[in-house]
Amino acid sequence: MLDDDLSAFLDGCPVGVLATQSPDGSPRQSLVYFARHGEQLLISTLAGRLKARDVERTARASLCVMGHEPPYPSVTLSGPAEILTDGIGPATAAVAQRITGASEPPEPMSDEVLAEAGRVILAITVERVSAASYIPQASEGGG
Amino acid sequence: MLDDDLSAFLDGCPVGVLATQSPDGSPRQSLVYFARHGEQLLISTLAGRLKARDVERTARASLCVMGHEPPYPSVTLSGPAEILTDGIGPATAAVAQRITGASEPPEPMSDEVLAEAGRVILAITVERVSAASYIPQASEGGG
Repeated sequence: MLDDDLSAFLDGCPVGVLATQSPDGSPRQSLVYFARHGEQLLISTLAGRLKARDVERTARASLCVMGHEPPYPSVTLSGPAEILTDGIGPATAAVAQRITGASEPPEPMSDEVLAEAGRVILAITVERVSAASYIPQASEGGG
Repeated sequence: MLDDDLSAFLDGCPVGVLATQSPDGSPRQSLVYFARHGEQLLISTLAGRLKARDVERTARASLCVMGHEPPYPSVTLSGPAEILTDGIGPATAAVAQRITGASEPPEPMSDEVLAEAGRVILAITVERVSAASYIPQASEGGG
């Protein structure tokens, strides 16, 4: 689903707007940091957050990622989603690296430590790419 | 619903991520330019667009607005929404001004001309403010 241009664009943008479906059917949106792993989008959140409960209930989510200067390139990625608690140290570290902008991810924490902190990974498998506009060509650079 | 800080933040950010509810229940997201008019958020779109049809069907929408530098201030605004076609020249001009960044809005077009172009205004009345983070104080300036 993600060609070189889209992959490079996503890797250059650390934040996106997550949308999940709330129990009354209406969309619930919030800004999140994410990391791409192949065709998966990984978001670190807390198990008790409404966005995590929405995903547990509906098993779907959508992420809209935008650039930060006119013409504001953007794309929406959506697909099946799940809440992960096993082996999430590396994914959590990858998201932390996006937050800090460090050149390397921090040392991954154990699942036990993350569970104690209530942290989970919300993982979206990209099934659909929509509303793509002004995505730069990867060869042009970007970020 | 919108205090001075939030109003100033919204007025400094020309784009947001609109979410509507698609017929299968899942959220539909896309980047849009918007203009604030009091407690209303105005988006210019085409009558045939899926986002417009979603609003006609569900009468609700949500807009997540973010700043464009770390720590990425953001807020989600949601509420009743409608598709307007009468007297939409000034609102359409206000959105056009946000796109061009001009100091004044262009001369408003007539409803007839806008109807011929298929243009409508998607208007959200802010009923709920959520997921607000890092919103700058209006006195600090911003934008």
